[in-house]
Amino acid sequence: RLQDKLAELHPADIAFILESLPMDQRMLVWNAIEASHHGQVLVEVSDAVRHTLISSMESADLASVAENLDADEIADLADDLPKNAMLKILRSLNNLERKHVNDVLAYEDDQVGAFMDFGTITIRADLTLNAISDYIRNLGKLPKHTDKLFVVDHDNKVQGVLPLSRLLTHAPALTAENAMVTDFVQFEVDQEIAEASHAFERYDLISAPVVDREGRLQGRLCIDSVLDYILEENDEERLIQAGVTEEEDLFSSVWKSVQNRWPWLLINVTTAFISTRIIGFFEDAILQLVALASLMPIIAATGGNTGNQTSILIIRSLALGQITSINVGRLIRKELTLALLNGIFIGLVVGSVAFFLYRDWPLAGVMALAMLLNLLVAVVAGLAIPLLRHKFDKDPAAGASVMLTSITDAMGFFIFLGLASLFLL
Amino acid sequence: RLQDKLAELHPADIAFILESLPMDQRMLVWNAIEASHHGQVLVEVSDAVRHTLISSMESADLASVAENLDADEIADLADDLPKNAMLKILRSLNNLERKHVNDVLAYEDDQVGAFMDFGTITIRADLTLNAISDYIRNLGKLPKHTDKLFVVDHDNKVQGVLPLSRLLTHAPALTAENAMVTDFVQFEVDQEIAEASHAFERYDLISAPVVDREGRLQGRLCIDSVLDYILEENDEERLIQAGVTEEEDLFSSVWKSVQNRWPWLLINVTTAFISTRIIGFFEDAILQLVALASLMPIIAATGGNTGNQTSILIIRSLALGQITSINVGRLIRKELTLALLNGIFIGLVVGSVAFFLYRDWPLAGVMALAMLLNLLVAVVAGLAIPLLRHKFDKDPAAGASVMLTSITDAMGFFIFLGLASLFLL
Ligand SMILES: [Mg+2]
Ligand SMILES: [Mg+2]
Ligand SMILES: [Mg+2]
Ligand SMILES: [Mg+2]
Ligand SMILES: [Mg+2]
Ligand SMILES: [Mg+2]
Ligand SMILES: [Mg+2]
Ligand SMILES: [Mg+2]
Ligand SMILES: [Mg+2]
Ligand SMILES: [Mg+2]
Ligand SMILES: [Mg+2]
Ligand SMILES: [Mg+2]
Ligand SMILES: [Mg+2]
Repeated sequence: RLQDKLAELHPADIAFILESLPMDQRMLVWNAIEASHHGQVLVEVSDAVRHTLISSMESADLASVAENLDADEIADLADDLPKNAMLKILRSLNNLERKHVNDVLAYEDDQVGAFMDFGTITIRADLTLNAISDYIRNLGKLPKHTDKLFVVDHDNKVQGVLPLSRLLTHAPALTAENAMVTDFVQFEVDQEIAEASHAFERYDLISAPVVDREGRLQGRLCIDSVLDYILEENDEERLIQAGVTEEEDLFSSVWKSVQNRWPWLLINVTTAFISTRIIGFFEDAILQLVALASLMPIIAATGGNTGNQTSILIIRSLALGQITSINVGRLIRKELTLALLNGIFIGLVVGSVAFFLYRDWPLAGVMALAMLLNLLVAVVAGLAIPLLRHKFDKDPAAGASVMLTSITDAMGFFIFLGLASLFLL
Repeated sequence: RLQDKLAELHPADIAFILESLPMDQRMLVWNAIEASHHGQVLVEVSDAVRHTLISSMESADLASVAENLDADEIADLADDLPKNAMLKILRSLNNLERKHVNDVLAYEDDQVGAFMDFGTITIRADLTLNAISDYIRNLGKLPKHTDKLFVVDHDNKVQGVLPLSRLLTHAPALTAENAMVTDFVQFEVDQEIAEASHAFERYDLISAPVVDREGRLQGRLCIDSVLDYILEENDEERLIQAGVTEEEDLFSSVWKSVQNRWPWLLINVTTAFISTRIIGFFEDAILQLVALASLMPIIAATGGNTGNQTSILIIRSLALGQITSINVGRLIRKELTLALLNGIFIGLVVGSVAFFLYRDWPLAGVMALAMLLNLLVAVVAGLAIPLLRHKFDKDPAAGASVMLTSITDAMGFFIFLGLASLFLL
């Protein structure tokens, strides 16, 4: 039976199945899952699919959804749960759990505090490894991802970390103070999670202490949350660059998808009218030399693609934190040189083909020159859009390709038709 | 002094600095690093920057670069080292290390075997936890990322895994057999790394056994290698979609960058000529109604952006493994419905503005209809390009946006000018 099969699956696998199913079958599967597993599956499922599941649930079921969840997982769901259900859940928690949930919720989406959990095991520096082993044996169970214990003082400040590997290999009579690592990585609650994720990748971390501004231990950050963040962030960037506003459920209603994609399309239509007006201005030129109408899209399209290449390389280097005020000047010079070379080469190719088609040397020359100039425009736009958006603390990738092709289209038509009017008519 | 400052830094931090520096300063820093650290830094640095560093090194230095590296790290560098240096390095290794390097090198780039390391600690099922603790204490040190021990039989088949947390919390008199987890995740050497990386995310793994087809333990896969794979993969996809062939060093020579970006640009120029020929075919129509030349780019550009939205959502779902032969039909229907709605809406907007500009109802009608049809074309292309490429085992993202805008440009011009010839002239 479906129920039995689902009961054997990991919540993350159930989440994946739900994400791949169209709405009616999704509800069938969802209702076949034991209610006590609903919480774990909601934690694993994508935001868009989570909405569809939560909106199908009765308020009584929603209030009990948090029964088997940790504080950080409850906080994860908080945004998506109806206010009523969330209040009921908070009331059902003990004081410490409630404090933890509220702690996580107090931070912005992009701060380390929003990603921490509370599976910290703290010890005092004067304990021997032997005593620590006994203490752990008494705990009976270690939280997931425990690769180290945190050595804290009476003020809850982290003095060092004791990796389990040291606990297992160092002399049992040693004190934590003598066995601990003092050169460790810790994060502040209000630090950017992006920064922390780079540190996880660089230093190959599994878990790390999270402290407040005074250095007091607040929780820990683990690789599973960091990985989730990285995957979500990549996904978001990919979507936003193509002008898709939000994560989309594969089978979300057509109406929702339309709303998700219209904003940028409307911007696109608006900017496209600028191109229309530019061409409209040169209608006389086109009537005198109709080949211009045929040739102008090459200038525009090639500009769009070149600009996209540049902007994607810049967006990427910004994401990796590789662009600094020191090297940005050299980078700009490099891309411009590149555009010049590309422009000369592709200009020659395009000019030759134009001559082949129309047997008209001046037209071929205008074509080549317009191509060169528009590739320069494209690279300037491909550099400027992400760099300026980054400078003003906006997501450098948002709608980059829509804005970019608008500029390269409009300028491509203007340059080509303008040059043609000057030299050919 | 620079030397002293660099000596204090983690190799991954040095790698980051090198990646952000222009060539002359990069070499300055590189030469200030102690030679014994060169290997670790080469492992951490991006492929493109690695090439610049390796090509600056003398062959004697290259042969000693592997001194402080593990077998999996040497294998990582193997592709990029000159053959001579690699042979010298292999000769300097002991038999087991050489076998390990060759093991890793035997697998394809996308197979789990290429990502494994050899920090496995194996135990027998009949040992007590107490004996295992003694054994580990005698080892003196655990490999990085050891969160579990592998319980193997006389045939080296993995019978279970013993998490360190169980070793620390279960009764010392228990045998490994009684304390181990038998419901664990393991990977086969020739399994796809993409699949394994999904498993790491879903089951929150730190390390997992890697076995051959007969189930014999070959090594292990750890979260740090998986994270590196995920980051590299995301990076590649982002670049390839914009038509950048390979990872690019921020400061690679202009000539290298040109080579990296020309292939797709040339494809773009070629396909743009198809648009040219289509418009050329309708030059008479344009001469009769020059407004057509002004209006046609809107149809083309909006098609390109819509198609990009669809293709990015499909590429993403393919990467997540969410598209199956079962749901693909529904997905196609959904996107087509969406395109129909979008097309009607944007067609009306665009038709209205066309009327506002030219006070010509038939022209406005042709505009609206052409927009609707080209958005349908765009969505079909946005679906078909990644789905077909995926079906034929090609990267669905490669040059997707270049191909897509070629199609939407060409078809946009054809539909609009064709309809205009039919109905307006
Ligand atoms: Mg998931
Ligand atoms: Mg959320
Ligand atoms: Mg969280
Ligand atoms: Mg957790
Ligand atoms: Mg790493
Ligand atoms: Mg974000
Ligand atoms: Mg790196
Ligand atoms: Mg490589
Ligand atoms: Mg490798
Ligand atoms: Mg390693
Ligand atoms: Mg996970
Ligand atoms: Mg490594
Ligand atoms: Mg275009």
